[in-house]
Amino acid sequence: MYSFKNDYSEGAHPRILEALAETNLVQEEGYGEDHYSLEAADLLKNKIGRTDVDIHFLSGGTQVNMTAIATFLRPHEAAIAAKTGHINVHETGAIEATGHKVVIAESDQDGKLGPAAIQKVLDIHEDEHMVKPKLVYISDTTEVGGNYTKKELEDLKAFCGEHDLILYMDGARLGSALTAEGNDLKLEDLPQLTDAFYIGGTKNGALLGEALVIIRDSLKEDFRYAIKQKGAMLAKGRLLGIQFLELFRDHLYFELAGHANQMADRLRKGISEAGFGFLTHSTSNQIFPILPNPLIAELQQKFGFFIWSKVDEDHSSIRLVTSWATKEEKVNELVEVVKNSVKSRTH
Amino acid sequence: MYSFKNDYSEGAHPRILEALAETNLVQEEGYGEDHYSLEAADLLKNKIGRTDVDIHFLSGGTQVNMTAIATFLRPHEAAIAAKTGHINVHETGAIEATGHKVVIAESDQDGKLGPAAIQKVLDIHEDEHMVKPKLVYISDTTEVGGNYTKKELEDLKAFCGEHDLILYMDGARLGSALTAEGNDLKLEDLPQLTDAFYIGGTKNGALLGEALVIIRDSLKEDFRYAIKQKGAMLAKGRLLGIQFLELFRDHLYFELAGHANQMADRLRKGISEAGFGFLTHSTSNQIFPILPNPLIAELQQKFGFFIWSKVDEDHSSIRLVTSWATKEEKVNELVEVVKNSVKSRTH
Amino acid sequence: MYSFKNDYSEGAHPRILEALAETNLVQEEGYGEDHYSLEAADLLKNKIGRTDVDIHFLSGGTQVNMTAIATFLRPHEAAIAAKTGHINVHETGAIEATGHKVVIAESDQDGKLGPAAIQKVLDIHEDEHMVKPKLVYISDTTEVGGNYTKKELEDLKAFCGEHDLILYMDGARLGSALTAEGNDLKLEDLPQLTDAFYIGGTKNGALLGEALVIIRDSLKEDFRYAIKQKGAMLAKGRLLGIQFLELFRDHLYFELAGHANQMADRLRKGISEAGFGFLTHSTSNQIFPILPNPLIAELQQKFGFFIWSKVDEDHSSIRLVTSWATKEEKVNELVEVVKNSVKSRTH
Amino acid sequence: MYSFKNDYSEGAHPRILEALAETNLVQEEGYGEDHYSLEAADLLKNKIGRTDVDIHFLSGGTQVNMTAIATFLRPHEAAIAAKTGHINVHETGAIEATGHKVVIAESDQDGKLGPAAIQKVLDIHEDEHMVKPKLVYISDTTEVGGNYTKKELEDLKAFCGEHDLILYMDGARLGSALTAEGNDLKLEDLPQLTDAFYIGGTKNGALLGEALVIIRDSLKEDFRYAIKQKGAMLAKGRLLGIQFLELFRDHLYFELAGHANQMADRLRKGISEAGFGFLTHSTSNQIFPILPNPLIAELQQKFGFFIWSKVDEDHSSIRLVTSWATKEEKVNELVEVVKNSVKSRTH
Repeated sequence: MYSFKNDYSEGAHPRILEALAETNLVQEEGYGEDHYSLEAADLLKNKIGRTDVDIHFLSGGTQVNMTAIATFLRPHEAAIAAKTGHINVHETGAIEATGHKVVIAESDQDGKLGPAAIQKVLDIHEDEHMVKPKLVYISDTTEVGGNYTKKELEDLKAFCGEHDLILYMDGARLGSALTAEGNDLKLEDLPQLTDAFYIGGTKNGALLGEALVIIRDSLKEDFRYAIKQKGAMLAKGRLLGIQFLELFRDHLYFELAGHANQMADRLRKGISEAGFGFLTHSTSNQIFPILPNPLIAELQQKFGFFIWSKVDEDHSSIRLVTSWATKEEKVNELVEVVKNSVKSRTH
Repeated sequence: MYSFKNDYSEGAHPRILEALAETNLVQEEGYGEDHYSLEAADLLKNKIGRTDVDIHFLSGGTQVNMTAIATFLRPHEAAIAAKTGHINVHETGAIEATGHKVVIAESDQDGKLGPAAIQKVLDIHEDEHMVKPKLVYISDTTEVGGNYTKKELEDLKAFCGEHDLILYMDGARLGSALTAEGNDLKLEDLPQLTDAFYIGGTKNGALLGEALVIIRDSLKEDFRYAIKQKGAMLAKGRLLGIQFLELFRDHLYFELAGHANQMADRLRKGISEAGFGFLTHSTSNQIFPILPNPLIAELQQKFGFFIWSKVDEDHSSIRLVTSWATKEEKVNELVEVVKNSVKSRTH
Repeated sequence: MYSFKNDYSEGAHPRILEALAETNLVQEEGYGEDHYSLEAADLLKNKIGRTDVDIHFLSGGTQVNMTAIATFLRPHEAAIAAKTGHINVHETGAIEATGHKVVIAESDQDGKLGPAAIQKVLDIHEDEHMVKPKLVYISDTTEVGGNYTKKELEDLKAFCGEHDLILYMDGARLGSALTAEGNDLKLEDLPQLTDAFYIGGTKNGALLGEALVIIRDSLKEDFRYAIKQKGAMLAKGRLLGIQFLELFRDHLYFELAGHANQMADRLRKGISEAGFGFLTHSTSNQIFPILPNPLIAELQQKFGFFIWSKVDEDHSSIRLVTSWATKEEKVNELVEVVKNSVKSRTH
Repeated sequence: MYSFKNDYSEGAHPRILEALAETNLVQEEGYGEDHYSLEAADLLKNKIGRTDVDIHFLSGGTQVNMTAIATFLRPHEAAIAAKTGHINVHETGAIEATGHKVVIAESDQDGKLGPAAIQKVLDIHEDEHMVKPKLVYISDTTEVGGNYTKKELEDLKAFCGEHDLILYMDGARLGSALTAEGNDLKLEDLPQLTDAFYIGGTKNGALLGEALVIIRDSLKEDFRYAIKQKGAMLAKGRLLGIQFLELFRDHLYFELAGHANQMADRLRKGISEAGFGFLTHSTSNQIFPILPNPLIAELQQKFGFFIWSKVDEDHSSIRLVTSWATKEEKVNELVEVVKNSVKSRTH
């Protein structure tokens, strides 16, 4: 059984383990004030072309989202998210547990939000009997594999600016977004196009770790207090700094994401060639083919993956996720099973 | 400069890094449902002699404390802690941020709580205009190096039972407590003497990781929801399971803690022989010698440590912390500086 | 300008003011432990035919909802509500501010929830990565004037029982529900058909005040702590007890609600006779006629009311609310304007 | 049995009930936007000599404190209070329930805080591992009857200004403070000497109601959202406005407080003349005489009051509270019992 369930099935890229081993016995300050973390923050600032941003390393996506959003908002303010948004469905109410409502805006089929959808939310929130929508939460890639074009983000940022909204991007799979086929966004665009975003490590080759980048000045103050209060400040914070240093020392971060995307491309093209469609438009490392139920059952004999949704009586969509560690031969095997199933049925 | 600042200055014990490397490419389920975590939980149950407890792996002490306490208490219930209790002073109000007051009980000089102190707290909380004290938070070792005897814990547990209080033990430095000179507590006593406790990994050789043990049945339900909601569920949860497997596969956990204690003993004896006293009675890996200020200044030339408190115009207490990684030669060097300073002054 | 904006435009029924004046100088205990509040609780228990319930008096609807729901749920548990549910749209995120997500179930056009809609919510909440839906919030009458039949509530209660869900009813306008044309529910049915509900006073003749009735034993413990903690315990709690004593001493509560309903009936019938339809089916004190925009503009010259929603280019729905204090002559005046406008247009 | 238990044993001053009756059937906007509330806010602004402040009417002291403090602070910030501070001991953790720690500063014997005590708190809160003390909570009168001189408040305000602390005053018994013998503070001084304070109505003749005055601009924004979210926005908000209009239309508010103080003075002088001392220095409407236990038992035959604390084996302090409604004859009776007891013992 080979798993396409997610992009965190394996450990870390070997270079990361090596970096941990090499630095292991050096004595360092705790709580993220070690030399590695400081250096990693500087390196990231350099990569994104802005020295006036604040960078903090945390352990996981839900943790970053709840720490950032709870800190950025006043008690009566709410986050706007797509129905499929991770903070809305898959974080066990972590945002609400910090006191804030998540208000739903209608996304497109690929999980992306645009100005019109957010305007509709603003229109129905008129006075103090309702929460005040204040932060727009988007994910790139989205939870269903979509990714934003530069133009889409520019429009969103302009809209948020006009309406005094904070634009926050969940970058759990930012590597995949930035290396997706057809993508025209660059890492160094993001400080201009968001107020805060994070660069996901866990799903792109790290053991754990996400780098939160805060751009808007008014959101920066006292953020380390928030990290500590949310239980998110690791005593051995070096663990995060060392990993990001390794991922961004050269092009490793993008190479790993690129590999994941290539593996997904191969799956997508193969499945497409076999005549099947997809639930969403995705050029990133999560794809959602719509397959006949018997074929899904057949695939389940050899591969691990999640059944995503029922499409009709005879078809369902499944989710296939690739990663930095996905093996090409396993991708080929899966495509072959799909193609063979078509052949055998057409005979 | 050699640091005695804390027990998380280095990375992890080499065997842990090796275990991570060996298992690195095995595909596993995410979020703590991997084989390593399941096996580690079983191993720990075996070590503590109880299969009817629940075990969860989290990343750090503040995170465990806030997740457990927020889940164990109803909104109007409060935790009782010593003034020096970690949840009271050094967690940036993490407990209060989940909605619960921390009520102070008077501890002894070593940071330990007893029934009489808790009774006093209960006496002044009489009705619904005040919070309802419901959980007793203790640390072993305490934040100032003290550790509980078996008799002390038995008395506390009996008292808590009579007053329907939850007894929760913070075991960030439990390894040090269980291997301290004169200690008569064993790991397998704890399920009988607490309602929940955690076994600290971060400060005893792990990269990160604490194992929460929940004994009382009524505290167990849906705890994984709490972990997820607090941002404490690592996608690559294997990272925690693998480490605890390694620490408890044999006697590594206790050997590491034993080393830390021996190094502290050596410091304590040396400093004591030089004629100096201590702020608290500690046989664990944190000691608080009271030294003349000029000697402290001299030590600061060669060693890193925190000045703890001013004792009088001429003396302060300092905190020296040893760990699994502390080098004996550095301990000897420090003792020598202390002894020489006495000699030079007496001449 | 006569207002049909809401049912809290006037003060209190004169008998209530008299009762306050008569008892004014009697010395009483504070915080709801006065004789009037105790007597009112007994009286209500008698009226609902159950002595084994707990009754608490609070000041307003949002306050009751947030205090009850926050106390009934554990941190990871969520409330299920209709999209139109008051806790979802008009309480400024008060439920979320206590840490709990409000999950939306699809209601019928009249704002009512049934088992099928709740089942759908349960179906998609499968594991600890999502909140755990635990409480079903319904309103009777609903926010758009609908009311539950006895059979509907029986089905809902049975469903909640099977799925271990708490059924909580917001009774801000319970008086109107229980006296609506065609209603077959009685006050004494509610303890059997809900786990907790409240009897609204503010919108039915009181100055302020709602009576929360807790039926399920496990929800009762320490509830007065919750009231105090949420700032909901009035020093002069007598103020609430005295009012409920007066409202339920005889049939005043139902007479007041009956008057409001009759006034709404008269509006509904008149508007219906003039040939107009309604957005929802309501036999209670809130009706939502769909009118041509010019007629709405004409009505606005003489009457205060809210425009509820745009129906098409030429029509909108408006909300008309009647109360215990609504004057029959003003109702007749409004109907006349509507009828005349039709006549003038048909000529 | 005549009660000296507290200052909320009776209903409201008769003029307040009359005002409610007179305005009862006037239709008004809901939720505090009625003409009475607007007019009352203007009247208060006039009385305190500042039109640039915001005024909101809420129902009770705990409610004001939790709504204001939760809104003024960011999540990691804490309130500083005296150990006897109402928010620390008698609000069931309402502040902590909104996520904020209450940090204790050492008060004088009368429950007052000064710069030195607050400086000590600041000194030990040095970094992000601890909460950030940001708001100083004081009460005037204090919970043990003390009141601040103008000079004391000036010093406190200056200190808070230097350290960027918010100075918030709980004025549940502000009337008593401002009319106490020897007091040199005026209502119109408070906007210059605090950042926010409230004028207590409940304990000075209102049925319920407190007027929060926000002076510092940065604390004003969106405060009505906070009121609604905390369940503190009454549908019939007129109820609060009408009462404050009546209390401040002339000198009623100060006359009522003055009466309470005179009654307390008489008690204090009589008890003092009988040879007894007091636990605190109080010229306000709460006094704490230290009496022999047998005398206390004798008083309990005729009067209701709380025993405050044990002083020695034979003596306890009791709390006597007077109000706008306290009857002079009852005060005389109590003094007589005390004096007679002394006579009978000295014979």
